[in-house]
Amino acid sequence: MERVYMDNASATPMRSEVREAMLPYHDHYFANPSTVHDMGTAAREAVEEARGKVGGLIGAAPERIVFTSSGAEANNMAIKGAALANKKKGNRVIVSGIEHHSVLNAARFLERLDFEVAFLPVDDYGLVDPAALERLISSDTILVSIMHANNEIGTMQPITELARICREHGILFHTDAVASVGAVPVDVLELGVDMLSFSGTGMEAPKGTGGLYFGKNVRLMPLIHGGIQERGMRAGTENVPGIVGLGKAAELAALEIETESRRLQQMRDGLASGISEGISRVTHTGHPSLRLPGHVSFCFEAVEGEALLFMLAQKGIYANTGSACASKALKISPVLAALSLPHEVAQGSVVFTLNRNNTQEEVNYVLEHLPPAVHSLRSFSPLWSEDAT
Amino acid sequence: MERVYMDNASATPMRSEVREAMLPYHDHYFANPSTVHDMGTAAREAVEEARGKVGGLIGAAPERIVFTSSGAEANNMAIKGAALANKKKGNRVIVSGIEHHSVLNAARFLERLDFEVAFLPVDDYGLVDPAALERLISSDTILVSIMHANNEIGTMQPITELARICREHGILFHTDAVASVGAVPVDVLELGVDMLSFSGTGMEAPKGTGGLYFGKNVRLMPLIHGGIQERGMRAGTENVPGIVGLGKAAELAALEIETESRRLQQMRDGLASGISEGISRVTHTGHPSLRLPGHVSFCFEAVEGEALLFMLAQKGIYANTGSACASKALKISPVLAALSLPHEVAQGSVVFTLNRNNTQEEVNYVLEHLPPAVHSLRSFSPLWSEDAT
Repeated sequence: MERVYMDNASATPMRSEVREAMLPYHDHYFANPSTVHDMGTAAREAVEEARGKVGGLIGAAPERIVFTSSGAEANNMAIKGAALANKKKGNRVIVSGIEHHSVLNAARFLERLDFEVAFLPVDDYGLVDPAALERLISSDTILVSIMHANNEIGTMQPITELARICREHGILFHTDAVASVGAVPVDVLELGVDMLSFSGTGMEAPKGTGGLYFGKNVRLMPLIHGGIQERGMRAGTENVPGIVGLGKAAELAALEIETESRRLQQMRDGLASGISEGISRVTHTGHPSLRLPGHVSFCFEAVEGEALLFMLAQKGIYANTGSACASKALKISPVLAALSLPHEVAQGSVVFTLNRNNTQEEVNYVLEHLPPAVHSLRSFSPLWSEDAT
Repeated sequence: MERVYMDNASATPMRSEVREAMLPYHDHYFANPSTVHDMGTAAREAVEEARGKVGGLIGAAPERIVFTSSGAEANNMAIKGAALANKKKGNRVIVSGIEHHSVLNAARFLERLDFEVAFLPVDDYGLVDPAALERLISSDTILVSIMHANNEIGTMQPITELARICREHGILFHTDAVASVGAVPVDVLELGVDMLSFSGTGMEAPKGTGGLYFGKNVRLMPLIHGGIQERGMRAGTENVPGIVGLGKAAELAALEIETESRRLQQMRDGLASGISEGISRVTHTGHPSLRLPGHVSFCFEAVEGEALLFMLAQKGIYANTGSACASKALKISPVLAALSLPHEVAQGSVVFTLNRNNTQEEVNYVLEHLPPAVHSLRSFSPLWSEDAT
């Protein structure tokens, strides 16, 4: 096995159909979509066609989607844009304790503008409690943001219920669905959310792409002010090839998602139970069943996650310790800290994220090479004593 | 002549060397640059190599550059980021009256956060007066933003002098150099600016790329909050292929810029004098010599700019009426309005922007077909009377 790449939450290769779809927009239909002359028409139409495809993947009308340069930008636009546009109604924002940095730090930025941020705790599976959200809501709460699926522990939140509570209180609800869109069927109307962020990064789409769904009644201030692009919601010349690529990736994902998510779920369960059974003193992180189909995350006691990654890479296996966006200076991820995992457990975190390109043979290969790697690291660890097994 | 594309300020085709340079980063070196495993190394190194090349083009140390998704994002980051990070020092921002929408509207957004925006007027050539800037500066002024070159009228401002005045007053100076970087030699240290925005759009680089130079002592709040990317200055997974492409385009531009800008200046002067001599009642907009090398802009009396564009497109000639970012609902561009041009003149605006791909044969072709097109439109215009010629 030459290389087993199971770090698809961090990045995915661009798929060939996507590359092909983008090609004509680099140097043939290259004109600015906003130009009045006819050379801009093809670019303009391509952008709108892609908007329809992306809308199709998440059950949204095309005009409710704004293209951004990343999921992080979409999260910033949603949190800051909704808070600033609605600050006359109140100044309180609620986020969960395991949000992505782009949600957390966007919310913290709002504190500098006299907003208040409240944090909703999670249980040991990383789940928020809808009743706790309801208790946390105050009359000055204007916005709640809770992620659809967590990229580090895979747990998927009960978004429909959380969104319903917010709707009943007349509060805007945003979900960061960067980890879930393209991985599981997502329908903005079924979820009942006001805003939903997504990204091309995990969808084999080009890097530098993403977007925000926002409902008809959502007042939003742009994050990038300027010209008329994206109906005044997001300035800057459209990244036409990137948008076309994202559209193509969304179109293909929509076709494959039912079958693919079932296949991944099977491989995920096989990998997870293989690890649980083959290695002692491991902690499965996140929820066992309410989780992303291709997501397997464990903490290996008395093992440094990074050291294990290096050992695995020597066998051609690529995984992650958590989020690629987190500072390497932090020994323990804030997400794992929120699950109340003890330090010596949390530091041994390894995350496998599978996608369309992964096979059962690769899962078998990982199950063959992971246990000896863990065993070998533990044999050097002062924290490890065999009798405790 | 199949097609003469002279709308390079709006968009440029991606050049083939750039496409080639990007290719391996789509599906081979596709890993997230922030990952701890070795697959991220190639991506990380490619981003830093590109930063060096972009720095080389504008005389900046690589670590002083943040990559963004567009010039508009860079302008928003500079204006909002510097104002918010320095608001304890004062709340007044000065911009010129002919800034790009992304600067103007970012500044207007600051008014909602209790900042005050002062506008510096321009003369009939679109030039700001350094003495007028000095008079406008007050003790609570913290930031001045004046564009390097205007995309609609080509005029280049005396940035070195303007930046010096700001430095003497301890005020941050930003320049939007989206239209000039790649077109003329730009050196941030010679200019003496604190911040400078640029974009890949006009450089035959991929769409969706750009960046901001910011000096060592510039305190700046991020526009996109989140993870550790770009040393915490701009969150979101790096657009690795886009950044690599921008780096390649910058490297090539740096090699060619001296020769190319001289060549374009000659073609520009030939096109401009050909239009002045061949067509009656035309107004050359912008400064005759202090202007972008490939930039030719005119107002044709008693002609609708858009109608003329359509006539030219029928001959395969592609130009623009002004900025592609402006709303088409506006009959007159705010830039032309700032030059105090009468309405009936300003509405006949046509802008030709030439680049590396344009030839003298193309200029001749335009000079052959433009006068009859203007003449034909005028013959139908109620505003036109032959005896006035």
